[in-house]
Amino acid sequence: MKRYLETIKSEEAIRRVLDQVKSIEDEEYLPAHACRGRITTRPVFAQRSNPPFLCSAMDGYAMSFSKTLEADLTNPIFLIIGSDAIPLNTGDPLPKSTDAVIMVEEVEKSDAGITIRKPAYLWQNVRMIGEDIIEGDMLFPANHTIRTLDTGMFLSAGITHVHVRRKPSIFIIPTGKELVDIYNSPSMEAGNTGLVDFNSYLLVNMAEEIGFHADKSKILITKEELSSIVQQASHKYDVIIINAGSSAGSEDFTEAVIRELGTLIFHGVSMMPGKPTLFGIVNGKPVFGIPGYPVSATTSFKVFIEPLCERLLATTISREFVSCIMPYKIPSRIGIEEFLRVNLIDKGDRHYAFPLPRGASIYSSLANADGLIRVPENIEGFDEGETITCELLRNKSELNKRTHIIGSHDLSLGILRDMLKKRFPDQDLISTHVGSMSGIMAFRKGITDLCTTHVLDDDKEKIYNISVVKKYVPDRRWLLLNIAKRTQGLLVQKGNPKSLSEIADIARGDVTFVNRQVGSGTRILLDAMLK
Amino acid sequence: MKRYLETIKSEEAIRRVLDQVKSIEDEEYLPAHACRGRITTRPVFAQRSNPPFLCSAMDGYAMSFSKTLEADLTNPIFLIIGSDAIPLNTGDPLPKSTDAVIMVEEVEKSDAGITIRKPAYLWQNVRMIGEDIIEGDMLFPANHTIRTLDTGMFLSAGITHVHVRRKPSIFIIPTGKELVDIYNSPSMEAGNTGLVDFNSYLLVNMAEEIGFHADKSKILITKEELSSIVQQASHKYDVIIINAGSSAGSEDFTEAVIRELGTLIFHGVSMMPGKPTLFGIVNGKPVFGIPGYPVSATTSFKVFIEPLCERLLATTISREFVSCIMPYKIPSRIGIEEFLRVNLIDKGDRHYAFPLPRGASIYSSLANADGLIRVPENIEGFDEGETITCELLRNKSELNKRTHIIGSHDLSLGILRDMLKKRFPDQDLISTHVGSMSGIMAFRKGITDLCTTHVLDDDKEKIYNISVVKKYVPDRRWLLLNIAKRTQGLLVQKGNPKSLSEIADIARGDVTFVNRQVGSGTRILLDAMLK
Repeated sequence: MKRYLETIKSEEAIRRVLDQVKSIEDEEYLPAHACRGRITTRPVFAQRSNPPFLCSAMDGYAMSFSKTLEADLTNPIFLIIGSDAIPLNTGDPLPKSTDAVIMVEEVEKSDAGITIRKPAYLWQNVRMIGEDIIEGDMLFPANHTIRTLDTGMFLSAGITHVHVRRKPSIFIIPTGKELVDIYNSPSMEAGNTGLVDFNSYLLVNMAEEIGFHADKSKILITKEELSSIVQQASHKYDVIIINAGSSAGSEDFTEAVIRELGTLIFHGVSMMPGKPTLFGIVNGKPVFGIPGYPVSATTSFKVFIEPLCERLLATTISREFVSCIMPYKIPSRIGIEEFLRVNLIDKGDRHYAFPLPRGASIYSSLANADGLIRVPENIEGFDEGETITCELLRNKSELNKRTHIIGSHDLSLGILRDMLKKRFPDQDLISTHVGSMSGIMAFRKGITDLCTTHVLDDDKEKIYNISVVKKYVPDRRWLLLNIAKRTQGLLVQKGNPKSLSEIADIARGDVTFVNRQVGSGTRILLDAMLK
Repeated sequence: MKRYLETIKSEEAIRRVLDQVKSIEDEEYLPAHACRGRITTRPVFAQRSNPPFLCSAMDGYAMSFSKTLEADLTNPIFLIIGSDAIPLNTGDPLPKSTDAVIMVEEVEKSDAGITIRKPAYLWQNVRMIGEDIIEGDMLFPANHTIRTLDTGMFLSAGITHVHVRRKPSIFIIPTGKELVDIYNSPSMEAGNTGLVDFNSYLLVNMAEEIGFHADKSKILITKEELSSIVQQASHKYDVIIINAGSSAGSEDFTEAVIRELGTLIFHGVSMMPGKPTLFGIVNGKPVFGIPGYPVSATTSFKVFIEPLCERLLATTISREFVSCIMPYKIPSRIGIEEFLRVNLIDKGDRHYAFPLPRGASIYSSLANADGLIRVPENIEGFDEGETITCELLRNKSELNKRTHIIGSHDLSLGILRDMLKKRFPDQDLISTHVGSMSGIMAFRKGITDLCTTHVLDDDKEKIYNISVVKKYVPDRRWLLLNIAKRTQGLLVQKGNPKSLSEIADIARGDVTFVNRQVGSGTRILLDAMLK
């Protein structure tokens, strides 16, 4: 049986990774309009002033201002077109011996010439050389990430091509005999026993998003295949990720492969998810073994590959943070750093963070999350009301365009969400499913303005919701809308072999009944019926 | 002479544009991993539960938990591998007749079997069907913008392809005989009199960034060419932009072309920059004429094409805003909405906004800006200290990683910036050039922590900076660093035809001297010398 070599803190692990890499020195020389998102490797200097010559700032007539000095309302001056006044459009170079432009709107035009009733001044409506950009000015330093608006600067300064850093390349290797490639597996629909490999497609997308050129291999099964592919890839790519096989199972040979081909630097990080991450060097290239659970894989990617990418590109990945409040106590194990996925409720002046399921196998907890909270390893979690920093997983501007519902789950919520998004594409409906009573409590505390509930009032049978909300929410004004009635039933084995037909049947000795959680409307209904 | 039809408010103009378009109904059916950034046209439902079968959550052995109930430290239970205990890895399906998994780390293994000293419980280390995703669940509604993390959801829910909205297409037409295409103009370097067409390349980049498929034509010169290309493009593209020729000059035939081919809807918007924007419909397609000055063109794009794109795609473009304080009074013309480009100084709890040059011809004022402030048409500008909302033009996370210098310009600032970015790629040095005295005043007020100054003390000739800073900054602790000495001189005509050799020469009757602005160190030096 194998054990982890040692378990180190994520901070120390990141340091060890960064110690092994430096910024890419290779350059590409790209057309200036095609380098959006790329990073300069050298300072960029203006090749040409803008404008590069005196030119007209208006549509009008160029002239020597000295010929206009006597003009006023009672003393119009007539200028002959072609000799005294030269017609031009915005951007046209100023003809020699002219030094002012009069706007087309300010002259009276006849066949032979123009009449003006106001003198011009020197350089009136003339753009001076270098008004915008002066030849030789440094426009951008090295290590500048080129934005869309920057591409305009290059061309206006006469720069046709720019030196940018080569993109780092990454190779993703999915491994595991339980995996199937959904695109090469027609049997998928018939329901075979393979697990869809979506990590490798997802990791390619994540890598491309932060600036990598990313490729992936087919799914590998044997140690020999893996060893051979890692060897080859180490000559071609800047970074290699093996996913998964980094744990301690019988098929986890990533560690052995790295040891045989190169040097293992760490195996095991005191973080959750992502603990079985390993890292080594093969032919001078960083090779990661990251765990197979999708939340673990993506967390490992964020923790290790993002800073590595920043180092390779000499740039910073833009991350957004908000402060948020914990609506209830969140315990966390001491001695291990935890990455909590949370939904955020934007209440204008503050955000509340609702933790999503914490298992590493629940990918939806990450894909549906608004943010990620690091729980440091030296604390036992957060208290109710504590203020925490949260890294956003979606644009901040989305957060205040959402309607939140906390409470009981119902299929109609999906239908409502779809209807809302169809009519108001910039809005969204987010529901957090914590059961009816927890929903009412969140509404009572003002954390949510909408809750879903289906609670039977124990004392007044067959009356749903009204008296319960009255009892628990005495201080807020509220409106109760009935959106659906439910018919509830018993979920039985196929064919109903025990012939259950009414609630009393669950009291029979040959029947085992699995209840819903405390606080759910269904359980409250059951309790009332049992009474 | 032509005039604008009428000038309408931007709000009204946007309404008229949006009245003419609706969301694209055409769909594409893309591989799920390749639809990052695209927008769903239908709700997406899970095709398969995840996991789709009971499977092991750990590397270990599967068994029936009932066989383990008697196990404890003093009563080890032996299970035969193959019949009682089935070895499996994380993700493997649970064999029939087993209902629990014991982790590999918790058993003692021998050749024939395993010994356990702790009972297992029902479904221990087993992932239940649909633990993550349940078949039939609505994963995303229609009109959802697919993020990178969402692509993982599709594949894990057995979805190989997704219906997304076709990208809207846009055609950019540069016009004007003064324009040259920098990539087809080798004479550019020799310094001809053409202006580089960078708008069309920039507009293509801006359009692609917000989700358009964008193409551009060559530079058009005649009305006939333009008319023919617009006619053709109106059958192929969703949106057409003509740039420029929307003003009132002799070559401004955009309006005439639209009138001849279709319907003109407005010409002239009471905004600055961007006033000569025009809009019409040709063959049912929106056609814009946007002004030629690059700041006007990009402002028009932001004001009109961005909301149009949102409508076509049924999505929202992510925009970030900050509150900022005006460090001094900013007048603005009443009756016209103005878009101010500003640099932002992040002081932790507040941002100060420093307006950049306001001319529409100064593209660098936009490319270097951190944000854009709308000055409404019904006010005369902002007062010193007023708090304003600013739309960011770069990521907010960049703002607090910058060192700001306010004061006198010097070439060494570019060199310092480049040195800083090379050593600390996530940092930046931003300098605002307002002259030495304004820099000292900003330092005194605490708006900046660094200022550049080269001011001669009038009373103590040849002593620079020290006594001036002492005098104006009595309340802050400061350190004065000498980074450069300057030799100043007179800029004369080529060949120095008037043989100027010393400062006294500028007093000669045949010499005209153009001074620097009040408050600049050079002017203060000159005043001292003149005395």
